[in-house]
Amino acid sequence: MRLSQMLWVTLREDPAEAELPSHKLLLRAGYIRRIGSGLYAYLPLMWRVLQKISAIVREEMDATGAQECLLTQLQPAELWQESGRWDTYTKAEGIMFAMTDRANREVGLGPTHEEVITAIARDAIRSYRQLPQHLYQIQTKFRDEIRPRFGLMRGREFIMKDGYSFHVNEESLKETYYAMDRAYRKMFDRCGLKFRAVEADSGAIGGSGSQEFMVLAEAGEDDILFTEDGRYAANVEKAVSIPPEAVASHFDKFEKLHTPKANTIESVCKMLKCSPTQVVKQVLYQVTYDNGMAVLVLVSIRGDRDVNEVKLQNELVKVAANYGGKAVINLQVADAESQQKWAHSQLPLGYIAPDLADSYIDQVKDFAPKFLRLADRTVAELHNFVTGANEADYHVVGANWAKEFPLPTVVNLDKAQAGDRALHDPTQILQTARGIEVGHIFQLGTKYSQAMKATFTNEQGEELPLVMGCYGLGVSRLAQAAVEQSHDKDGIIWNKAIAPYHVIVTVPNIADTKQIEVAESLYHALQVAKIEVLLDDRDERAGVKFKDADLVGIPYRVVTGKAIADGKVEIVNRATKVATLVAIANVVEYLQQELS
Amino acid sequence: MRLSQMLWVTLREDPAEAELPSHKLLLRAGYIRRIGSGLYAYLPLMWRVLQKISAIVREEMDATGAQECLLTQLQPAELWQESGRWDTYTKAEGIMFAMTDRANREVGLGPTHEEVITAIARDAIRSYRQLPQHLYQIQTKFRDEIRPRFGLMRGREFIMKDGYSFHVNEESLKETYYAMDRAYRKMFDRCGLKFRAVEADSGAIGGSGSQEFMVLAEAGEDDILFTEDGRYAANVEKAVSIPPEAVASHFDKFEKLHTPKANTIESVCKMLKCSPTQVVKQVLYQVTYDNGMAVLVLVSIRGDRDVNEVKLQNELVKVAANYGGKAVINLQVADAESQQKWAHSQLPLGYIAPDLADSYIDQVKDFAPKFLRLADRTVAELHNFVTGANEADYHVVGANWAKEFPLPTVVNLDKAQAGDRALHDPTQILQTARGIEVGHIFQLGTKYSQAMKATFTNEQGEELPLVMGCYGLGVSRLAQAAVEQSHDKDGIIWNKAIAPYHVIVTVPNIADTKQIEVAESLYHALQVAKIEVLLDDRDERAGVKFKDADLVGIPYRVVTGKAIADGKVEIVNRATKVATLVAIANVVEYLQQELS
Repeated sequence: MRLSQMLWVTLREDPAEAELPSHKLLLRAGYIRRIGSGLYAYLPLMWRVLQKISAIVREEMDATGAQECLLTQLQPAELWQESGRWDTYTKAEGIMFAMTDRANREVGLGPTHEEVITAIARDAIRSYRQLPQHLYQIQTKFRDEIRPRFGLMRGREFIMKDGYSFHVNEESLKETYYAMDRAYRKMFDRCGLKFRAVEADSGAIGGSGSQEFMVLAEAGEDDILFTEDGRYAANVEKAVSIPPEAVASHFDKFEKLHTPKANTIESVCKMLKCSPTQVVKQVLYQVTYDNGMAVLVLVSIRGDRDVNEVKLQNELVKVAANYGGKAVINLQVADAESQQKWAHSQLPLGYIAPDLADSYIDQVKDFAPKFLRLADRTVAELHNFVTGANEADYHVVGANWAKEFPLPTVVNLDKAQAGDRALHDPTQILQTARGIEVGHIFQLGTKYSQAMKATFTNEQGEELPLVMGCYGLGVSRLAQAAVEQSHDKDGIIWNKAIAPYHVIVTVPNIADTKQIEVAESLYHALQVAKIEVLLDDRDERAGVKFKDADLVGIPYRVVTGKAIADGKVEIVNRATKVATLVAIANVVEYLQQELS
Repeated sequence: MRLSQMLWVTLREDPAEAELPSHKLLLRAGYIRRIGSGLYAYLPLMWRVLQKISAIVREEMDATGAQECLLTQLQPAELWQESGRWDTYTKAEGIMFAMTDRANREVGLGPTHEEVITAIARDAIRSYRQLPQHLYQIQTKFRDEIRPRFGLMRGREFIMKDGYSFHVNEESLKETYYAMDRAYRKMFDRCGLKFRAVEADSGAIGGSGSQEFMVLAEAGEDDILFTEDGRYAANVEKAVSIPPEAVASHFDKFEKLHTPKANTIESVCKMLKCSPTQVVKQVLYQVTYDNGMAVLVLVSIRGDRDVNEVKLQNELVKVAANYGGKAVINLQVADAESQQKWAHSQLPLGYIAPDLADSYIDQVKDFAPKFLRLADRTVAELHNFVTGANEADYHVVGANWAKEFPLPTVVNLDKAQAGDRALHDPTQILQTARGIEVGHIFQLGTKYSQAMKATFTNEQGEELPLVMGCYGLGVSRLAQAAVEQSHDKDGIIWNKAIAPYHVIVTVPNIADTKQIEVAESLYHALQVAKIEVLLDDRDERAGVKFKDADLVGIPYRVVTGKAIADGKVEIVNRATKVATLVAIANVVEYLQQELS
């Protein structure tokens, strides 16, 4: 392609709308253009990158026997009502765009396709002899994000590969799940990405096991915990660990102490000269279920630990039936500000005890008619601990479970953190990194097939729900993550596997007919050799062309400059910036070698 | 692909939802599945067909220098408000799905992309030196159809190739427009379709010249008029012609005659023993403009001709400014039924004169405060004609323009019909055919660039609006049109260029290890030879397999039946049903020959 004929405009200045380097670079280098909030047009160069990633994804998916299809983007509400997700997706969380058509039927714009594919499987699959099956598609998805940002990272329209598999049992599901794990690793390797596969929380999609694929990058939104030995990596939301041991308590007598203004762990520890590991801290939540029921949840956790709210949410969903609900739609921690909103009582925040007195509970009955106590496993084994006295400016010390306070239901709610020991080998200490989630594979089990009555008949003639897996990969997000991982101050550095073009031939001076002649003949020869080549034949200064070439990030730049007098051109490697003089006659061979 | 492993189910019965043969066949043969009204999932076989069509489209588009991109499907209302189409598309006609996002902004789901691409061009194009440009995309589009039907023909989601070009002037536009004409013909040829390029009306897209590409099929929704010499073809909505000459009138005296119950052309001609070509008939419309203004329009046209309502609508848009409007949103003909709705007067329908009396007009003032008279060119030259007397059961004869009736504004409103003479050669008589519109190319001109202020600077430094073209092709519609054009009672007959697979190897009896052995080895050999092959290794009766193979329409079927005892297999051509015995060793070569 000749740049003089391509619709391509680069920007000198960083666009105000962008924060992340990758977002800035994709806008500046003319890859994408903003059409509206969270909406980006993929201009010709970007489309080539996306097509290359898609081609890699297709090859690896097809190699596993998965079948490509294309499902509808508009999805009838009835399907989502069957799975029970319509209200959660369109109202409670509101991430699904929904509308009413001219016949007054509700339809949503697909953020994901479990319902549609399960409806198809329910019709098409009757017998174990038809199983396993795995269908996938590469398609634009939609999410009405609360705060669309970071360009293609969190847009309202984005391209995904999503696959769905159907099985007779968990064993068959696991086979496909592990095949997908291998296929995903191949795809990311082929795209030239540094990544980690991590244990993940299954979130709203549901299911038992799930794994995320994180492209490592400083600006990543996700925290990863991992061990040096490479045997453990997990999203912080999902990570498990052995917390440091608690320091033995020196309070051997239960008593109430005056601790004025010591309403933080730090201040109370300082005042009482104790370790945070000796303190039982209470965190109070107001939880709202999907049926509108509000529950006050009091979590007791060790003073040095934080609550992992994803784990908490999962625990709360488990007991949802007790409150007539199914899903948690809101989780709000009681701090000075939020307390004003949903509790006018004088709750002594910072001094609450594990058995928050009934008098306080009565005060908030209107806001949270139900009350639930949970204890993190980190407090279950504590003796003679310090905790609140249910009275402002007072703590108790030397407390013990069953003696002064009943031990609430013990669950695992603490957030793993760097410095914790690993479960698989306590000599391994967890370390932290940041990543961008580009893939997520799930063992769904029978969540959707049961809800939607998608069954098959097994060899014994029994009718059973299909066992399902689902496998997502963010194609447009991967493209930007690649830029986030690989760029320098001058611009993008594409891996040759996903670069829009392999080579850019830059003519420093188009008024020089000799330069043009060499460039045109190389442009032709490279095309014949199936090397994807751009020709910068624009009427611009050499400096502008070099800057643009760096910005756009094509792996190799061929410059038909002064050296042509000696029968040579300069070939610059974009990543290393190393320039090599190569005889004109050897350029094709040289680049074939480099690109192979 | 092994059929035993593919998600593929065929139906024995015609599905109740389908009317067209192609729609029935695509459902029965397991290509598509209905997800909701006008919404179809493309199952793996269909997806392969669509990918093949897309690949042909891409190759031919790229060969013209057009650049592929992908624009957003969600489109902010503001862009459509700039072009002035938001209300027409979302309210008046209501064909655009529209919704409000969580930030209360209006967004639509793209049925077309003039606005988005013009916004991009407005930003990116500054100078004539950047022109011409041509961007295209292959994408799912949305239309909230009043009556979705015929499967992929008139769905609410469908795949389109849409391209948009930008030029310095009409001459440059025409160059690209004709290049597109040639590219489209190549695409349809390569897909193996019988088609006609016809002059078309530009409709709501706007612009000067436009051409449709029609796949010929009996069940087509569109009427085409064409001449035997191949030099003229047009959509009936757009077609022009020389109507037959009028028979000279024998009424040489103006008089009013009693014509009881003769309120049709047929009955009055019978009673007065005259030709319909001697009669001036009046057709009365109630027209509503987008600003709500209603206008009563009286069209005078020759008795043997019909009003082409697309032409009428175009004429009415031209004079819209007189009524404070821009677009016509409703056009209703006054017949006995509609008259009840919008006019309680005793209008003597069937007896109205070209100068409809004021007393009648007064009666309908509430329903249509404005009144407009138009005469089709077929009545302008008539002498001593017959027409209504503005009084039930009476006509006048021997009437003349300017004498008894003022001649209204003369326009061209008559619908061309089979039997008319061609303009380019009056010895050529128009004939009729039916087609399915699969492509439409437009010379848009400056309609969008002017409205959206997308300008460039020409060589003389003047700022001018970009001159635009747009080029649509229905990819999913083309796939079904191909089936509509090419099928028989047993199923689909795919052209090899767009068939999902080239060959199906059918094993009549999978219990016969010799048959399986031959089939497996051929399956392998054909794959090695890059021939796309299905292996029917299902545990089904031979009859079922043969029926399914015919239904699914793969061009060649290889049967590893009894003949393998003689070292041969039967190869059946799906289109001709001719079966040939071919030595097993020669199968690959034979099929390579057939497919080349």
